[in-house]
Amino acid sequence: MYRAPVDEIAFTLKHVCGLSDLQKSARHAELGDDLVDAILTEAGRFAAEEIAPLNAVADKHGTPLADGKVSTPPGWREAYHAWIEGGWNSLTANPESGGQGLPVMMSAAALEMWNSGSMAFAIGPTLTIGAIEAMEKHASEELKAKYLEKLVSGEWMGTMNLTEPQAGSDLNALKAKAERRDDGTYRIFGQKIFITYGDHDLTDNIVHMVLARLPDAPVGTKGISLFLVPKFLVNDDGSLGERNDVKVAGVEHKMGIHGSPTCTMVYGDEGGAIGWLVGEENRGLACMFTMMNNARLAVGIQGLGVAERAYQHALAYALERKQGRAPGETGDGMSPIARHPDIKRMLLGMKARTQVARAICYACAHAIDMSKIAEDEAGKTFWNERASLLTPIAKALPTDFGVEVASLGIQIHGGMGFIEETGAAQHLRDARIAPIYEGTNGIQSIDLVMRKLPLSGGEHIKGFIAELQTVADEVAASNRPEFGAAADRLSASIRDLEEATSFMLSAQADGRVGDALAGATPYLRLAGLTLGGALLAKGALASTGEPALRLSERTLLARSFCETTMGETAGLKSDILLSAEAIQAFDAEALAS
Amino acid sequence: MYRAPVDEIAFTLKHVCGLSDLQKSARHAELGDDLVDAILTEAGRFAAEEIAPLNAVADKHGTPLADGKVSTPPGWREAYHAWIEGGWNSLTANPESGGQGLPVMMSAAALEMWNSGSMAFAIGPTLTIGAIEAMEKHASEELKAKYLEKLVSGEWMGTMNLTEPQAGSDLNALKAKAERRDDGTYRIFGQKIFITYGDHDLTDNIVHMVLARLPDAPVGTKGISLFLVPKFLVNDDGSLGERNDVKVAGVEHKMGIHGSPTCTMVYGDEGGAIGWLVGEENRGLACMFTMMNNARLAVGIQGLGVAERAYQHALAYALERKQGRAPGETGDGMSPIARHPDIKRMLLGMKARTQVARAICYACAHAIDMSKIAEDEAGKTFWNERASLLTPIAKALPTDFGVEVASLGIQIHGGMGFIEETGAAQHLRDARIAPIYEGTNGIQSIDLVMRKLPLSGGEHIKGFIAELQTVADEVAASNRPEFGAAADRLSASIRDLEEATSFMLSAQADGRVGDALAGATPYLRLAGLTLGGALLAKGALASTGEPALRLSERTLLARSFCETTMGETAGLKSDILLSAEAIQAFDAEALAS
Repeated sequence: MYRAPVDEIAFTLKHVCGLSDLQKSARHAELGDDLVDAILTEAGRFAAEEIAPLNAVADKHGTPLADGKVSTPPGWREAYHAWIEGGWNSLTANPESGGQGLPVMMSAAALEMWNSGSMAFAIGPTLTIGAIEAMEKHASEELKAKYLEKLVSGEWMGTMNLTEPQAGSDLNALKAKAERRDDGTYRIFGQKIFITYGDHDLTDNIVHMVLARLPDAPVGTKGISLFLVPKFLVNDDGSLGERNDVKVAGVEHKMGIHGSPTCTMVYGDEGGAIGWLVGEENRGLACMFTMMNNARLAVGIQGLGVAERAYQHALAYALERKQGRAPGETGDGMSPIARHPDIKRMLLGMKARTQVARAICYACAHAIDMSKIAEDEAGKTFWNERASLLTPIAKALPTDFGVEVASLGIQIHGGMGFIEETGAAQHLRDARIAPIYEGTNGIQSIDLVMRKLPLSGGEHIKGFIAELQTVADEVAASNRPEFGAAADRLSASIRDLEEATSFMLSAQADGRVGDALAGATPYLRLAGLTLGGALLAKGALASTGEPALRLSERTLLARSFCETTMGETAGLKSDILLSAEAIQAFDAEALAS
Repeated sequence: MYRAPVDEIAFTLKHVCGLSDLQKSARHAELGDDLVDAILTEAGRFAAEEIAPLNAVADKHGTPLADGKVSTPPGWREAYHAWIEGGWNSLTANPESGGQGLPVMMSAAALEMWNSGSMAFAIGPTLTIGAIEAMEKHASEELKAKYLEKLVSGEWMGTMNLTEPQAGSDLNALKAKAERRDDGTYRIFGQKIFITYGDHDLTDNIVHMVLARLPDAPVGTKGISLFLVPKFLVNDDGSLGERNDVKVAGVEHKMGIHGSPTCTMVYGDEGGAIGWLVGEENRGLACMFTMMNNARLAVGIQGLGVAERAYQHALAYALERKQGRAPGETGDGMSPIARHPDIKRMLLGMKARTQVARAICYACAHAIDMSKIAEDEAGKTFWNERASLLTPIAKALPTDFGVEVASLGIQIHGGMGFIEETGAAQHLRDARIAPIYEGTNGIQSIDLVMRKLPLSGGEHIKGFIAELQTVADEVAASNRPEFGAAADRLSASIRDLEEATSFMLSAQADGRVGDALAGATPYLRLAGLTLGGALLAKGALASTGEPALRLSERTLLARSFCETTMGETAGLKSDILLSAEAIQAFDAEALAS
């Protein structure tokens, strides 16, 4: 069972990721420590008591499609309604549309716990929040008046409709069509696949945000527009009208997140689905990016949430299961496997990765929040760039870690880990999607290298690396032997990151795009691991008057991460610097012919 | 669909792993190149045409238990009987028991292809072969006369019954009981879990090899005996007699290999299952190790087989699927994703890991074969030690690679990879058990460090490392620019391995057992990666008059592996040298309390 790590989350928000910067701002003046703690505690309670028990049931039950309707697993509808009644859907939305205007950091923390409870459950509202953000920024007042309040309250849910069979990572190939009508509405035609919560029985209406192309649109992504297409049309008095011409044509049979319906949606089979333009014509991609950027952080948080749950699951087993005798043990009988060094290595590796994922996700949320409260242009630029830099890292590393941690969790369970009833396997099956959707982790790496490193002419990433070095220096200056080799290892990783960054910036400056692309994936991991080590060290350096055990635990975690996993950076750096030629020379087509 | 890589397999056997050493021996004088090629070609045909098409069907169907009987998936029984009629079950068994006496290298190669066809299918006969080997070495002539020929022909199958709920990695805790009877038989009582192919409908009889404890047995593993317990008793004329008192009590619902029934077996519920002693009383563990050592290599080959299939699957998709424009591409339209550098990185990583797994498994098989044909004591010792050294590596690295390759295969498929119908997910679900069973990879690492490094006072591992350096020197001396940084990287990894080995040997010499155990897992990976790089380089150095494309492909593969994945060794070494203190200090019980 899942226990919400409220203390650890609060510590990370406050002492590692800078929540107090927000609390000092006018915008979040009401967010005192008491309110922070109350929100986290209640979110944790709900996640542990109301959501977590549904996770295994949903995995078994799935979301069957019958008579054109998708039904969610037993208990899902009740949990969802209790959840929106608790006000959890509206944390970050603007107060003018009924939201609570809380910082993204707070919703990130809550979202972590929903995802630990059940990733398949938490993903539904995540999409709604994306729709809310797109509408807040881009929709007309009329559309807002009709839809926004009900999306914010959670009475209706939203979806994102991008993907088509031929258009996944590459939206240029998008084919769905939109036709203008005289009344200002549009008719939408086409098929969309992989639509999360495309249909379900949680709410009476579903608001689809759909990318489509007008007849006279330019080719490529400059000719894509965003439309709001409700499942049921909405009368002027807010009541539900006729069924729109949008149907669910199928539900995918997936490796994991069985509780989340992944739908094929067909628009306009009977004359055209009625849609309303969001933002300007042909500017749909910008609107979609509003949704996608936050969705990327949200997916990173899925990796984090599953990692935390998998860690707790494996830890409980390792404390209970006895096999063999640990070194130095005397007396009769077997030791709990948690005492064996090889199991300790795995547990520490799981816990450190989870805490790294947490700190990176919250740091990204912090940057997003700071960009909103920055008072001058320089501050706005800095925090926008920081959020841009951290978003691909916060999407990719935590989702890779989610898979790694879940897989270690299976390993700790031994043979029991492979048996579905144990529940360890579900974490891996669920986690495996997160490195893929919302832009594969390869796409994130390319975004980081090609679009984020060049920000401010390469100065932003250099400043970021200098900040990491400050942490390494503080660890060294602390003179605490408990840090072991952490300061040295952290400095070594920072030098690896510097060298790799220079390589990437030169490659782009010299037009060697292929060289940069070939090393993008190891570059993101190198940057993420180094940042992760620094954030863990920051946590261990924070002096908060906590019990000594907590401090020594955090120091141990930081130290062991720097001495184990973060050691990968040497190989990642040499990979980036050396392997581009061989990788590009690989010609699969010639070999296959 | 699966295409058997017969050329690659033949090349690896002949030019990387030393098959010709065996062909020169008196024992395998009949094994000419023509016979080798004929066996591989026909095994490949069978795997691709007869087994591979059953894989997805079996995943869906599973092995339901009804009325006390387990049924295998559709087509399974026909395929099994065609397979044994082809003589494939008897490749390595002694000619005197009806076997073909072929080297383990040949059966390893065939087993790779069966596993690529279907891991769930191939695992059944693997257990039978284990039973055959235990019987050949340890069973009485009477037992052999009654059972061996039918096991060798495949008319009956065998199982291995070790695990009990409280006794998994630690067989000391074994509780199953055996009682002596006056007629020389025994009565067996107890429950066994995780029994692969414990019951099924492929053969009329099943021969269980069961570990149990006599009433007066010493405690621990020195009090375990091995018994043969047939599902049906066998009359003196060889016909089947009464049903024995052994029942299947349940079939596990697993993450993968759904076509392989994993059974809970109950012995002696109705008065005692009749069993016959194999080997001596209380010496059962030695007999079991005969089965287990070869089973460990066989499990490594499972990782290899799934990796090859997952690679082919992902490659086919990457050649067909078009998205975006690869760097340097001109003209309209999208590129096959196989042209994108990040996808090339993944494909190369999959292919190189697969080829490393193959070379390591075959090298291990070669050492086993050499130990059998060695003519003098020194040779016998050397090859026994080499086989001992390579077995844990050949079990662990290929199974870890199986998981990594299958996971990369999902990633290349993007969203489609998460949809079960695509088939990419099954490879990961199937592969995930291999790092767990037949001794977890943690156990393998501990075996390598604690029992294998000290062989011949540490001299064997030193000689092994010196052999690897010879390969690195040859790469450097070849002066072929296509090798890129391979020679330097390989030498660097070898130095990492040397340092780590010294650390491990000193730790043991100084009684710092915990330090050695804490670093065992990274040590095995470090040794395996370095060996892998050397074996790939050996393949690229082999001059065989092949088409230039094949040579340049192998060189590229060796180079890219040395420049990418093998670069991990720097971090693994520093991990081993630095992290032992922090890992052992981790006290999960104190933190949980």
